[in-house]
Amino acid sequence: MGMYDEQWSYLEKPKIEKIPPDLQAYFEENVRKQEEKLGVVNTLFHILPLNPIQFKAFLDFMYSLFNTKNTYLDLVDKEMIGLVVSSVNCCNYCLTTHSDTLRRLTKNPVWVDTLTYNYRSAKLTKKQRALCDYAFRATKYPDEITTKEVDLLREAGFNDHEILEASFVVGFFNYTNRWVSTIGAIPNPKHNQNQR
Amino acid sequence: MGMYDEQWSYLEKPKIEKIPPDLQAYFEENVRKQEEKLGVVNTLFHILPLNPIQFKAFLDFMYSLFNTKNTYLDLVDKEMIGLVVSSVNCCNYCLTTHSDTLRRLTKNPVWVDTLTYNYRSAKLTKKQRALCDYAFRATKYPDEITTKEVDLLREAGFNDHEILEASFVVGFFNYTNRWVSTIGAIPNPKHNQNQR
Amino acid sequence: MGMYDEQWSYLEKPKIEKIPPDLQAYFEENVRKQEEKLGVVNTLFHILPLNPIQFKAFLDFMYSLFNTKNTYLDLVDKEMIGLVVSSVNCCNYCLTTHSDTLRRLTKNPVWVDTLTYNYRSAKLTKKQRALCDYAFRATKYPDEITTKEVDLLREAGFNDHEILEASFVVGFFNYTNRWVSTIGAIPNPKHNQNQR
Amino acid sequence: MGMYDEQWSYLEKPKIEKIPPDLQAYFEENVRKQEEKLGVVNTLFHILPLNPIQFKAFLDFMYSLFNTKNTYLDLVDKEMIGLVVSSVNCCNYCLTTHSDTLRRLTKNPVWVDTLTYNYRSAKLTKKQRALCDYAFRATKYPDEITTKEVDLLREAGFNDHEILEASFVVGFFNYTNRWVSTIGAIPNPKHNQNQR
Amino acid sequence: MGMYDEQWSYLEKPKIEKIPPDLQAYFEENVRKQEEKLGVVNTLFHILPLNPIQFKAFLDFMYSLFNTKNTYLDLVDKEMIGLVVSSVNCCNYCLTTHSDTLRRLTKNPVWVDTLTYNYRSAKLTKKQRALCDYAFRATKYPDEITTKEVDLLREAGFNDHEILEASFVVGFFNYTNRWVSTIGAIPNPKHNQNQR
Amino acid sequence: MGMYDEQWSYLEKPKIEKIPPDLQAYFEENVRKQEEKLGVVNTLFHILPLNPIQFKAFLDFMYSLFNTKNTYLDLVDKEMIGLVVSSVNCCNYCLTTHSDTLRRLTKNPVWVDTLTYNYRSAKLTKKQRALCDYAFRATKYPDEITTKEVDLLREAGFNDHEILEASFVVGFFNYTNRWVSTIGAIPNPKHNQNQR
Repeated sequence: MGMYDEQWSYLEKPKIEKIPPDLQAYFEENVRKQEEKLGVVNTLFHILPLNPIQFKAFLDFMYSLFNTKNTYLDLVDKEMIGLVVSSVNCCNYCLTTHSDTLRRLTKNPVWVDTLTYNYRSAKLTKKQRALCDYAFRATKYPDEITTKEVDLLREAGFNDHEILEASFVVGFFNYTNRWVSTIGAIPNPKHNQNQR
Repeated sequence: MGMYDEQWSYLEKPKIEKIPPDLQAYFEENVRKQEEKLGVVNTLFHILPLNPIQFKAFLDFMYSLFNTKNTYLDLVDKEMIGLVVSSVNCCNYCLTTHSDTLRRLTKNPVWVDTLTYNYRSAKLTKKQRALCDYAFRATKYPDEITTKEVDLLREAGFNDHEILEASFVVGFFNYTNRWVSTIGAIPNPKHNQNQR
Repeated sequence: MGMYDEQWSYLEKPKIEKIPPDLQAYFEENVRKQEEKLGVVNTLFHILPLNPIQFKAFLDFMYSLFNTKNTYLDLVDKEMIGLVVSSVNCCNYCLTTHSDTLRRLTKNPVWVDTLTYNYRSAKLTKKQRALCDYAFRATKYPDEITTKEVDLLREAGFNDHEILEASFVVGFFNYTNRWVSTIGAIPNPKHNQNQR
Repeated sequence: MGMYDEQWSYLEKPKIEKIPPDLQAYFEENVRKQEEKLGVVNTLFHILPLNPIQFKAFLDFMYSLFNTKNTYLDLVDKEMIGLVVSSVNCCNYCLTTHSDTLRRLTKNPVWVDTLTYNYRSAKLTKKQRALCDYAFRATKYPDEITTKEVDLLREAGFNDHEILEASFVVGFFNYTNRWVSTIGAIPNPKHNQNQR
Repeated sequence: MGMYDEQWSYLEKPKIEKIPPDLQAYFEENVRKQEEKLGVVNTLFHILPLNPIQFKAFLDFMYSLFNTKNTYLDLVDKEMIGLVVSSVNCCNYCLTTHSDTLRRLTKNPVWVDTLTYNYRSAKLTKKQRALCDYAFRATKYPDEITTKEVDLLREAGFNDHEILEASFVVGFFNYTNRWVSTIGAIPNPKHNQNQR
Repeated sequence: MGMYDEQWSYLEKPKIEKIPPDLQAYFEENVRKQEEKLGVVNTLFHILPLNPIQFKAFLDFMYSLFNTKNTYLDLVDKEMIGLVVSSVNCCNYCLTTHSDTLRRLTKNPVWVDTLTYNYRSAKLTKKQRALCDYAFRATKYPDEITTKEVDLLREAGFNDHEILEASFVVGFFNYTNRWVSTIGAIPNPKHNQNQR
């Protein structure tokens, strides 16, 4: 079956002939790598090539926050933030896919489930708790953000590079949550069983 | 005065020697262009080089949504969405800078002010109203997003490329609003007088 | 290890000598049955005998709603309602334990995960969707409940016995969610892996 | 007039022949006792026998929390909690009937009225204020419940038996409020004049 | 006892020598009339002369909306709106005093109690329901007011004089609710028993 | 063009023959003064004479709070409160007209814009910050107002005359915001350019 033959969202399926060949090659390479490395392909690769250049830009942007060099925070902490934000926004797609990622990183499915339900019930270090509390407040009460947020994160031990990155990560999931829910993206059902 | 000598946020100022030279050159070029074209430099150029690679990624990502080729929606409509989202989230920085942009695009400062206060009071085409209503709901009630959003946008006359882009744009401002408010970015006061 | 030797909540542990012998026997029998039938014991049996008579009353009350005779709605539908309500209230304990139950009943862990994240993303019959929508509204906006709720459930095909039971079930989880979150009950980690 | 001849809710009236005789006798006895003791019969006795076994279970459950032996908190304090919870949820039936109960218990109709409108305006002991604040927060912001709730109640002087019971009582009214509002139960108008 | 000897709010008591004599005479005359006509004096007469000229202006403003000539809506309907607004804002003082007024006007204490708890449970004409629904929405979701409000009120049968007055009345109680709650005004306990 | 010939709201236009001559003269005098002093006439003078006596009462009431004698707080601070309240309620008309007023008083359009977007981003004295925080909380969470509000304002240095006035001002804008949004009043477009 072709890469765009199945319906994974409310939107029309991408037409392969409308995708610039270099981008199509890039997407295919990503799919190959995901399959090899994770055993599951993110369905966004079947949906977002509808707007291929914007999809490529989204991938680049995401990699800039979630690679392991040139970033400041621990990957586990950033995925943890992702679950807290996505839980406030009730984003099924993001909770399904990122809980898979975090299970892979931590080998701790119980902890990950707890984060998807309510981070206040999860065992967290003081620093993790500060990140989660910040993520919750900035997501749910954005109009009430004050100077205090930076103060509290500094008090918890974060430096300003990390705080800036944390705020980008909170923002990132507030971005993905919106469009993923809007377009009705269906997560690959393999995520749910993965790493359990 | 040097590019990073003034304090424009709660965060520590970037140190020029920590910024890769090619990125520093890129940022300077952007600043030059802004000054020439708009007569005002966005203060993010004084703040975000603290995490230079992530700043570059943010710029690339933004340009992918707000250039005029390879995008589907009208630039005015996307800036309008930006004001609606930023108004729900009460983001001073984003409302200040993007109302300047939209004044420049429309030469209609009254309309732009109205959008920053309450889009329901602004004169809008049916299509614009559908975009604004969608932006409002997806921002304020993200957990209640249903199939209806795509249906309503289609009924208003948008195709699926445009709907996907609209959802990205709503997401984009939900992203910037969070970190801009967190780090206390101070907008360049020139924005307020510009294009009035 | 004794039944009350481990700390499963913020509250002090029950003292076996303070529990009326008949109730202690009843609780033990329940534990035995759970272990046999489900392979996992609900930790409430280690916590709630602190107030033994009220715990017994809670069990009786729960059984009156979730047995299979003298009830009107399908058990799957009632557990589904439970996940919707607990998801609105972000109750980690209830989401963990009742998703185990619903996986056992349906053998469909993907569907169950979706219900814990956002029921709007789950495949639902028209009748199930009506139940979930009702459960959401009555939980999140109780002050805005009107005549419409009964009308909508009837239109979806439910009779008045079922509607009354549905309203009791929505109420039931709004009850458990409150105290379970307050006392910090820790779910048995076996639930998370069960039925996956 | 027969016990089920009047319409006291949106639901169809119970049919006496569908109620097991022992339960019918039990309900009648309850009605007799209420009339004798309180001079007013709760209309739930005309409504809930539609699902007779569940009604019986509800009564047993309620009595386990609101009798005077085998419970830990003062009855006045539990009825006070009931008014706070029902006021947040705007449940007309519960506010009408339980304010009658609390007037009978306290002979202080002014204090009771205040609790139905806003407990913050009522004269409260420190312990009562702690209970009311807890009831408000757990009802309105269930997702934000943290360890602090138990800490604050302990600081106010409550032991763990009482805290567990308080959390059950808060839960109980969050349960009744939902179904009572859904089915449109009309309180007996005698409650309003009673004990004034 | 002098008119300002008792403490009826959090604020300091008015000093009679600071009140212009003509205003003091005017306040005393009002108090006399209230006592004669209603048998109960509103405690605001003991509190608000702290700022005497503003108190006089408030009285004039109130009379302009609640007299019976030169107004358009029925007094009962305006007091009904007052209870709906005050119930959303949980204003103890306003609910206590205006439910007394509405009992006097309607001789229907059950109906009035219902309005203070949840107007959706009260018997209302179509026109009254439209007023209450409008009052609720404009009070709780002011940012979401649209053209629809005027349309719905017109459809219900109100003319534009009445709609304008209704919007003033909704506003009026949103005004009093704020300062009455802030200053902790204690209603005269006679209101609670009055007209029962 | 006559004073009532243009359509400035959803409501029908006032008919000059229905306005008592003395009031019509008073309104005209006000219009003349506004034009002279401010160069812009508030469109309410074209709308509200529909209910002429109530309009006059509104004007008197407003002048009692916003004149400069017989009031206690600084005019700038009261207009600042007005923008905070109107921003929470998203009232386009009030934000447009009162930001014009505050620009005239302060000659600081940047500061004024910031207040319309999010007062937390504005430079404020400690006393101003206390007023703004109070205005925000009393507007958005009226049911949660406690004794603390008066305490915090006193700690910030306000006396009880000022606190009472502040609470009236917060109330005042909660009043105007409701009806102005309901009737769809269109602000005079001259306000937007004025004092920039």
